[in-house]
Amino acid sequence: MTPTEFRHLVRKNDYQKSTAGICPGFAQANLLVLPKVDAYDFLLFAQRNPKPIPILEVTEVGSRKLSRLGVDTDIAKDFPKYRIYRDGQLINEYLTIENYWREDLVSFLIGCSFSFEDLLIQSGIEIRHITENVNVPMFNTNIPLHPAGKFSGNVVVSMRPIKSSKIATAVSVTNRLPAVHGAPIQIGNPEEIGIFDLTNPDFGDAVTINNDEIPVFWACGVTPQAAVMASKPSFAMTHSPGHMLVTNLSNKELIV
Amino acid sequence: MTPTEFRHLVRKNDYQKSTAGICPGFAQANLLVLPKVDAYDFLLFAQRNPKPIPILEVTEVGSRKLSRLGVDTDIAKDFPKYRIYRDGQLINEYLTIENYWREDLVSFLIGCSFSFEDLLIQSGIEIRHITENVNVPMFNTNIPLHPAGKFSGNVVVSMRPIKSSKIATAVSVTNRLPAVHGAPIQIGNPEEIGIFDLTNPDFGDAVTINNDEIPVFWACGVTPQAAVMASKPSFAMTHSPGHMLVTNLSNKELIV
Repeated sequence: MTPTEFRHLVRKNDYQKSTAGICPGFAQANLLVLPKVDAYDFLLFAQRNPKPIPILEVTEVGSRKLSRLGVDTDIAKDFPKYRIYRDGQLINEYLTIENYWREDLVSFLIGCSFSFEDLLIQSGIEIRHITENVNVPMFNTNIPLHPAGKFSGNVVVSMRPIKSSKIATAVSVTNRLPAVHGAPIQIGNPEEIGIFDLTNPDFGDAVTINNDEIPVFWACGVTPQAAVMASKPSFAMTHSPGHMLVTNLSNKELIV
Repeated sequence: MTPTEFRHLVRKNDYQKSTAGICPGFAQANLLVLPKVDAYDFLLFAQRNPKPIPILEVTEVGSRKLSRLGVDTDIAKDFPKYRIYRDGQLINEYLTIENYWREDLVSFLIGCSFSFEDLLIQSGIEIRHITENVNVPMFNTNIPLHPAGKFSGNVVVSMRPIKSSKIATAVSVTNRLPAVHGAPIQIGNPEEIGIFDLTNPDFGDAVTINNDEIPVFWACGVTPQAAVMASKPSFAMTHSPGHMLVTNLSNKELIV
């Protein structure tokens, strides 16, 4: 299935699950939609925190269309699941946000680590949440973001258990893709970044960690949602964690 | 001399020339100061054009202080020379812009290719404008920038003549420093990018090109000034081309 075909499936609500493993080789994107009045603060926040918030594309005000990431795209319909936040409070999850669209909204499309999982698999690394057919485990950390205007908060990470003999490979493969979070930000010491129970993720699902594996943590595009909860802008719409936009942008175009 | 000592010299107006070759090993920065009302459009413009406009730091509104690039810094005094533009028209050059400062101004500090000249010299490459003790030659091109809001225009490039046998080295050395423009955007065919007379640069000075040398073009941090001239924001202040801020940021911290 091509990314465009997959988005058409999503647009009809015929796919509502996590997008890990979908359309290997193509970049996936996180979403944050904000009123224009908050857009400068957030764009500066992203500029100051490029590892957790690598911007892939920013729309024109009011537009639901993209250009770099795929022309046949509707931001309000092409993610499998959305969340709406008011004053930092999660209101609910939705299959479409068409009915909540406003002419003053700006959409930020942010790199997602699902994009590089295909390259890890090609390097002989098992991606546990794909094998176990669940959502990737994601955790809040104690690592503060550089604040900008009204936005602040802590980094959110995704976790993948990796065999000790494969960690160097995982680092070097992902280091070449800074636009989708790049190299891990921590390896092997969850307590140091404020994570005390790997069986109880803040977002997504727990996965098996075998005895010969070390937990490896990558910066995660759910970070803007944690910042929304901490910073309480009046209105924000996001994807639901793990439920990404599958873009037409090839990973190869992102490799440094 | 340390970067801090050099900035103190500049602050007393005791240095008013191009900063090429000053404080080898430390990053240098271009400047664009805009009213807050234009800051979102420009930050988005930079996000869409990271090669010519790599943002190193953005100040708080009204502040003349930096943090990442050096704490003992005064944006209004620490560049050897400034320019002021009104409605896209160059008004004049100034040794300080203290008297023109306003509480609604935001400063964008942008990577400069002077930063990597030290690494090129260490790789056995002569930097002709340093040898000839003149400003680097810079040219307007016909390469369009991705527009954002009120900002549009064409890329400006700096030119260095490089021996054919050293061009691959020049590419690989600078490719590792995307924060200061990275690899060249064109090698050896100036007409293709709209440059027809290498002896008559649009900014800076002409340099000798020997028979065994090819002109190599890097994206240049004067690009925002060309965009200001094309886009005509009501007010903008910049450095004078070639007259940069010498920062405390080591090039080593920028290497990818």
